[in-house]
Amino acid sequence: MAKVTSYDVAKRAGVSQSAVSRTFSNGGKVAADTRAKVLAAAKALGYQPNVLARSLITGQSGMVAVIVSQTSSRYYPEIVELLAGALERAGKKMLLFYTDGRIDRVEAVLQEVGKYQVDGIIATTQFAPDKREMIRALNRPMVLMNRLDPQGEFASVICEQTLGGAQLAAALVNAGRHRVMLLSGPKDNFVARHRLMGALDGLGSAHLDTLAGDFSYESGFNAAHQLVSAKPDAIMCMNDSMAMGVIDGLDRLGVQVPEQIWVTGFDGSVAGALARYDLTTFAQPLPDMVNDSVELLIGQMDSPDESPQSLVHQGALRVGSTAPL
Amino acid sequence: MAKVTSYDVAKRAGVSQSAVSRTFSNGGKVAADTRAKVLAAAKALGYQPNVLARSLITGQSGMVAVIVSQTSSRYYPEIVELLAGALERAGKKMLLFYTDGRIDRVEAVLQEVGKYQVDGIIATTQFAPDKREMIRALNRPMVLMNRLDPQGEFASVICEQTLGGAQLAAALVNAGRHRVMLLSGPKDNFVARHRLMGALDGLGSAHLDTLAGDFSYESGFNAAHQLVSAKPDAIMCMNDSMAMGVIDGLDRLGVQVPEQIWVTGFDGSVAGALARYDLTTFAQPLPDMVNDSVELLIGQMDSPDESPQSLVHQGALRVGSTAPL
Repeated sequence: MAKVTSYDVAKRAGVSQSAVSRTFSNGGKVAADTRAKVLAAAKALGYQPNVLARSLITGQSGMVAVIVSQTSSRYYPEIVELLAGALERAGKKMLLFYTDGRIDRVEAVLQEVGKYQVDGIIATTQFAPDKREMIRALNRPMVLMNRLDPQGEFASVICEQTLGGAQLAAALVNAGRHRVMLLSGPKDNFVARHRLMGALDGLGSAHLDTLAGDFSYESGFNAAHQLVSAKPDAIMCMNDSMAMGVIDGLDRLGVQVPEQIWVTGFDGSVAGALARYDLTTFAQPLPDMVNDSVELLIGQMDSPDESPQSLVHQGALRVGSTAPL
Repeated sequence: MAKVTSYDVAKRAGVSQSAVSRTFSNGGKVAADTRAKVLAAAKALGYQPNVLARSLITGQSGMVAVIVSQTSSRYYPEIVELLAGALERAGKKMLLFYTDGRIDRVEAVLQEVGKYQVDGIIATTQFAPDKREMIRALNRPMVLMNRLDPQGEFASVICEQTLGGAQLAAALVNAGRHRVMLLSGPKDNFVARHRLMGALDGLGSAHLDTLAGDFSYESGFNAAHQLVSAKPDAIMCMNDSMAMGVIDGLDRLGVQVPEQIWVTGFDGSVAGALARYDLTTFAQPLPDMVNDSVELLIGQMDSPDESPQSLVHQGALRVGSTAPL
């Protein structure tokens, strides 16, 4: 089937192709009666103006690049789904880019993003400082989600990770826990690092030791044996996926949660709230953070000259059954 | 910052803009020394050929539309993540379209898809028969995932849902279950309907009654009370999310799984395999299905004249602890 072109519409409407093009362009100027003729002809012929072709004129494609570091955390699909929904409601489509959680892939991903006519970028990934020039060269509105730009050049929406870690740790200490093991996230991960700093602050002398995790369920499961060998009374995991892995690992070792050891997560994921896990965790207000990210991005598209904002959300303790605070 | 254009590159390289354009087009012909000059100039200036502009020439944008019906099943994020990964490996980007699980939104979504210069479409959604013309008009390679085109016009990758339902049901009956309640999925959902038909076939007179679910965890949780009131010895749920909901609902009612009632799921989701749920389920080979879908799609792009294939996968029983078959 031959595709209906703007020339077909122009012919049927008895106007110029340029009039058709202007009718379907944002801000294109065209006389009211010409516009009416074009729309009638377009409807009759089933004409679909190609938004990508149009984007070459208007500079708007309707697409937003979402860059996520697909770590093995099971939280990422939840973030992607919420972002897709929020962008959809804002009339934008999500074009997805993965970095595999490897900071050395960021450069390749930024080059990829640069090849597409996206209206903006939402990134949940870490950028090395030397990538700043590359990001500037993309010349697109950008919002960092759960990453902060220390120079304030790029907008960001974050949750108070350090404070959250400290609050959760202090709550454990106040509840009488004095031998607390930590399971960290990936070393080069912004969120993991800040949560850990907060936890260490809040624990003080109640901190026994820290084992290295990678945010995956499996790294939690596999660490269970080594974690209990230190005879802790609580295990703080720097995300929910690892906490679920630790709990399953402890189940397998016959160690009872919370009777023998308390376990806490971090995220407030849907998975962690499942009744059979019912994690005590520090919950980020993820839907709000996602909505704010999309709103900031749309704001930057509409007013490119305003200085980028940084929004800081406060999370909240969610007390489940794995640590009855 | 002004964007570097192909004209800037042409000027620096001392060649025509058309030579620059041909250098960055798939299959574009250009002399070797011209190409070398263009590449050197492009590198020096940090030129990023816009793939969308180029797509107007080559007809290839590198984007694949993925249409999913975002039901409340927690399986969908898993599908989307696998698709994004498989497309990434095939050098394609995922542009995501949601139908909210409402068949009446399919038309609007197809119109949206038509506006983007995508190289192909992977759809996990139901199409009403009267949308066939619309899909043809899109004039793009398309693969249906877990949906079958009865007319064989569109390629598809499915899992044997009906046979799966029958096998799981027969295994329950053979294990001595004779009072089996069913929890169905959405009525207009292809997968849910076929699973239910198979289950009814396999159960025969062991079928007590069927309650209506909608694939969501919540619909399982809320149905638990009514399901047990029929005094069943097993509950077959048409997906894993509902089975997890039923289990949590039974936990709350003090009904023990599997001691008092067996519960089965359907999907073989990552969530359902969590140690504290450990569902007995009929598992689809989702990673294989996703890889095949992407492969079929790429095949259609490369050889548009070959007739569309339909691949049928066999799932397999996964025996967990919720029904010790």
